[in-house]
Amino acid sequence: MEFRFDEAIPLLRRTPGVLRALLLQLPTAWIDATEGPGTWSPFDVVGHLIHGERTDWVPRIEHMLEHGDRVPFPPFDREAMFSASRGRSLVELLETFSELRAQSLTRLDALGLTDADLSRRGQHPEFGVVTMGQHLATWVAHDLGHVSQVVRVMARQYSDAVGPWRAYLSILKRA
Amino acid sequence: MEFRFDEAIPLLRRTPGVLRALLLQLPTAWIDATEGPGTWSPFDVVGHLIHGERTDWVPRIEHMLEHGDRVPFPPFDREAMFSASRGRSLVELLETFSELRAQSLTRLDALGLTDADLSRRGQHPEFGVVTMGQHLATWVAHDLGHVSQVVRVMARQYSDAVGPWRAYLSILKRA
Repeated sequence: MEFRFDEAIPLLRRTPGVLRALLLQLPTAWIDATEGPGTWSPFDVVGHLIHGERTDWVPRIEHMLEHGDRVPFPPFDREAMFSASRGRSLVELLETFSELRAQSLTRLDALGLTDADLSRRGQHPEFGVVTMGQHLATWVAHDLGHVSQVVRVMARQYSDAVGPWRAYLSILKRA
Repeated sequence: MEFRFDEAIPLLRRTPGVLRALLLQLPTAWIDATEGPGTWSPFDVVGHLIHGERTDWVPRIEHMLEHGDRVPFPPFDREAMFSASRGRSLVELLETFSELRAQSLTRLDALGLTDADLSRRGQHPEFGVVTMGQHLATWVAHDLGHVSQVVRVMARQYSDAVGPWRAYLSILKRA
């Protein structure tokens, strides 16, 4: 599929609700579970998504509108949440993410972008020239990737508990 | 993690709401998307989960309570939904799944199982002897696996649209 605003926005709008439906009031054993040292828990992922709303998605769109590909995006800190989330509860993080996502979509809407803007160029600090359409499609795929990660981390807690069914459950297989 | 009723039931209870949050009223391009010929769309997955409620999860628990490992489970038809879902809408399927899941958990609760029941044995038509604990853990992991599948199928529609970000998005990489 090509990127289309009318298909992408409904997905972006849903992500906070999906994470609330999945995680709110779930036993903490799931919320704090990881896939081993150096991997992220569902709690960590929500913090990472918050940081993306603050510094990546709409800020980079505004950066592209202002600077085109003349000024590279400021780099994105993938692990900023390890300090930013400290001492906060999952409920707080989910509320913050919901509010920030709603604000992001309001800001996006106010920019009045059309299909003609999808070919606008930006300068990625690592990839070089990228387009606004690629950035927007990445926003969607990034959301879905992290929902998938949360679900995978939880499923893998039962890798041993499922016994022989492990052979049928591709989510339990190491990539 | 070992299987525990008080950790597993809250997850099983959430799955219909997660799928509603993700899929209800989403543009049909996402609902009918697949990963290519012979792969399942989000619509197909919801039908498959319905079939599991009807013929697999609680029915096999009841089968184990009645027959132990003396009588194999009836085989499960992974693809029954291709005929059963025909002509139905996603809204209908999501409602049906929500109702059936609620009924399954009510039936499970009425059985009054305790940790002592987790070692009860059943006869899987392919694997041989399995335990009730393994079957219950598989119910949870199977739910999560299919949520992950739905999300992956949608993300992969943007495999080309994301451009160079593809290198960072592990959800877009073929297993």
